[in-house]
Amino acid sequence: MLQRTYENQNCSIARTLEVVGERWTLLIIRDVFLGLRRFDQLQQSLGVARNVLSGRLARLAEAGILERVRYQERPERHEYRLTESGRELSIPLLALMEWGDRHVARSGPPRVAEHRDCGGRVSARLTCSACGDTLEPAQVRTRPGPGHRAATAA
Amino acid sequence: MLQRTYENQNCSIARTLEVVGERWTLLIIRDVFLGLRRFDQLQQSLGVARNVLSGRLARLAEAGILERVRYQERPERHEYRLTESGRELSIPLLALMEWGDRHVARSGPPRVAEHRDCGGRVSARLTCSACGDTLEPAQVRTRPGPGHRAATAA
Repeated sequence: MLQRTYENQNCSIARTLEVVGERWTLLIIRDVFLGLRRFDQLQQSLGVARNVLSGRLARLAEAGILERVRYQERPERHEYRLTESGRELSIPLLALMEWGDRHVARSGPPRVAEHRDCGGRVSARLTCSACGDTLEPAQVRTRPGPGHRAATAA
Repeated sequence: MLQRTYENQNCSIARTLEVVGERWTLLIIRDVFLGLRRFDQLQQSLGVARNVLSGRLARLAEAGILERVRYQERPERHEYRLTESGRELSIPLLALMEWGDRHVARSGPPRVAEHRDCGGRVSARLTCSACGDTLEPAQVRTRPGPGHRAATAA
């Protein structure tokens, strides 16, 4: 069971950050997206303490974001693969990257995301599922949803 | 000057997380989006220690994400407003919320984001700026960008 980092917050941002918001966790997921799948590759890329990496990987597997798969029998070795829900984290990750490219990348984007088929630049955008418009932040409002009362009462 | 949490990472995700990745920081930004602007409102909503909140707000102001504005003279009182770069964080925030709604919201979405004009549900999507397609994660690849070498050499 994951620790409730934000115990009193009935919010999907808070719940998500309880799973992926610890130091290093989003960078581990980024590295697996980039093709690093083995413990030693991840450890080398991140320069993080082995016990920290080991703990983070175990939590990501427990949360169903990474899958630990045996790829060799003798000696037994495992690698980490993104699950379907893990792959869906590419949207917030690329949105964070894009924000960083605009506001904190002093020498231009270190990496560029592009559409495999046409090579065009990929952008994370807010879209309206009803009218199809691409929206600016000011065109979006939020209201309490179906999970609002349920979790408040719990 | 902000602390370099991920010193050796030449990556816009890592740089962004150095600014917004500390515990509570994204939830503070969320609350300002939701209309909470004063220290005491934020403190009550989050239930976070006052010194922690105070430190986070100072860093967000320093990073140009929040602006501290005086709204009363005697006694002097301030409130926090999102800057333009702060408002752009609505994209990663809503992407994190959407992921959480799908995977960790047990009683349905606590909040719903909708298009002000038509009331349609808002979704964070990956789009191609060249062909305009909405992309699945598997249709996206990344490659080193213009800032790759620059920051490696630094």
